[in-house]
Amino acid sequence: MEQLGNATFENYVGLTQGLSEMGYQMVAHVLTLGYAVMLAGLFYFILTIKTVAPKYRTSSVLSVVVMVSAFLLLYAQAQNWTNSFVFDVERGRYFLGDGVDLFNNGYRYLNWLIDVPMLLFQILFVVSLTKSKFSSIRNQFWFSGTGMILTGYVGQFYEVTNLVAFAAWGTISTLFFIHILILMKRVINEGKEGIPASAQKALNTIWYLFLFSWMLYPGAFLMPHLAGIEGALFGEAGIVGRQLTYTIADVTSKVIYGIMLTIVAQILSQKEGYEQK
Amino acid sequence: MEQLGNATFENYVGLTQGLSEMGYQMVAHVLTLGYAVMLAGLFYFILTIKTVAPKYRTSSVLSVVVMVSAFLLLYAQAQNWTNSFVFDVERGRYFLGDGVDLFNNGYRYLNWLIDVPMLLFQILFVVSLTKSKFSSIRNQFWFSGTGMILTGYVGQFYEVTNLVAFAAWGTISTLFFIHILILMKRVINEGKEGIPASAQKALNTIWYLFLFSWMLYPGAFLMPHLAGIEGALFGEAGIVGRQLTYTIADVTSKVIYGIMLTIVAQILSQKEGYEQK
Repeated sequence: MEQLGNATFENYVGLTQGLSEMGYQMVAHVLTLGYAVMLAGLFYFILTIKTVAPKYRTSSVLSVVVMVSAFLLLYAQAQNWTNSFVFDVERGRYFLGDGVDLFNNGYRYLNWLIDVPMLLFQILFVVSLTKSKFSSIRNQFWFSGTGMILTGYVGQFYEVTNLVAFAAWGTISTLFFIHILILMKRVINEGKEGIPASAQKALNTIWYLFLFSWMLYPGAFLMPHLAGIEGALFGEAGIVGRQLTYTIADVTSKVIYGIMLTIVAQILSQKEGYEQK
Repeated sequence: MEQLGNATFENYVGLTQGLSEMGYQMVAHVLTLGYAVMLAGLFYFILTIKTVAPKYRTSSVLSVVVMVSAFLLLYAQAQNWTNSFVFDVERGRYFLGDGVDLFNNGYRYLNWLIDVPMLLFQILFVVSLTKSKFSSIRNQFWFSGTGMILTGYVGQFYEVTNLVAFAAWGTISTLFFIHILILMKRVINEGKEGIPASAQKALNTIWYLFLFSWMLYPGAFLMPHLAGIEGALFGEAGIVGRQLTYTIADVTSKVIYGIMLTIVAQILSQKEGYEQK
C-alpha cells in the first residue's frame, strides 16, 4: 500500500490480486458504451432543437453542452482504464502496469463540475416558477452543485488510504446533495401549476427519474466499501459494479432527463401555438 | 539540472522529487476539463448565433474561432502532460519518463496567439465606439496582443534556468498587457453610451470579468516562484496551482466572456426589434 500513495480502489485491487479478463473487459465495454451514448445524445439534442419554441431551446442547448463535455471526459476515463492495466500472461490476469498511468475516477468528477450546474439550470428554462425567483434558484443550484462535486472529488482520493477523510468529505458532499433535492422538488412543484395534464405527468416522471439517477452516484462513491474492499470476488465485483452504476446514472440523469424535458417543452410549445417549419 | 537544458518547473520537479498521485491526477483532470469546456462552448456559440441580430453575429463567430483553437491546443497540452510523467511503482510517485516527451506550457501560449486578438476584436462587433476609430483600436489590440504573447512565450522557457531572462521577457510582456487594459477600458466606456441600463450593467460585469481573468495569466506565469521552487509540497502545489489557474482563466476569459457578450448582443437585438424565428 505504501507505494500507491493516494490509492484508489481500482489500483489497490489491480496491484494486489489483479482483475479477471471478464471483469477488466466488462469495465472497458461499459465505459465505451458510456461515451458512445453521449455522442449519440449530442446529435439527438441538436436535431430536435426546432421541435420546441425559441424560448425553450436553451434547455436543448444545455443538453448539448452536457453531451459534449460528458463525451470527452468519459472518453478520457475509458482511455485511462485501458492505459492503466496490462494483461500478465504468466498469471493470466490483468494487473496495474509499471511505468504507465494509474486509474482514477476523477475525470468523471470534473465532468460533473460542468454537467451538474447545466442539468440543474436546464429545467429552469422549461418550467415557469410561480413563487421562487429564477436568479435565486439558479445561484443556489450553482453553489450547492459545485460544492457537492468538489468535496466528493477530494474525498474519492482517500477511499482506500484514509477512511476518516473519505467519510468526512463524503458527508459534506451529501449535505449539498440534500439541498439540491429540496430545491429541485420545489422547482417541479411550482412548474406543475397551470400546465396541461400530460406535461404535469411528464414533470412527475422527471422528479422520480432525478431522484433515482442522482441517488446512484453516492452509491457508486461508497461502492468499494459496500462490496467489501477485501476478498477476490467482492473486490472485482465492486469495481465492475461501480462503473456499471456510474454509466446507468450518467445515461439516465443526462440523456433520459434531457429527452423528458424536451417532451415537456414540446407539449408547452404546441399549447402556445408553436408550429415547426 | 544540467541535463534538462531549458527546464520548465514541471520537468524540474518531475525529475527530482516527483509528483504524488493526487497532484499528477488533479492536473490530468483539470487539463481534460479545460478542453472539454472549449468543445462544449463551441456548440453553445454555434447554437445560439441566431438569438442575436445579424450585425452582432461576428462576435459569436469569433467565439467559435476561439473555442476551436483552444480546444485543439489544450487537448495537445493535456496529452503532453500524460505523455511526460509515468508512475513508478517502487517509489510510489510519478516521475518524468525516460525516453518520452518533456512537459512544456508552450501549447497554451501559441493558442493565445490566435485567441488574444480574437477575444479583443470580438467586443468591437458588439459595442459602438463613439470617439475612437474602429481600425485604430483593432490595430493596437493586434499589435499589443501578439507582442504580449510572443514575449511571454520566450520568457517561459527560462523560468528555472535563467531568472534574469525570465523577468526581462515577463516585464516587456506586462507592458503590452497594460496597454491592452487601457484600450479595453476605453472601449467599454464608449460602448456604454446610449444603450439600455441592463446592457450597461452587463458591460460593467464584462470589464471586471476581463480584469480578473486576464490578471490570472501573469500570476500563473510567476507561479513557480510565487509557490517557491524548492520544497516538496510547495513545488507540487505550484504545479497544480498553475494548471488550475490557467484553466479558470481560460474558462472565464474565453467562455464566460463570450456568453456575456452574447447577452449584451441579445439585449441590443431585442431593443432594435429583432425576433428569433
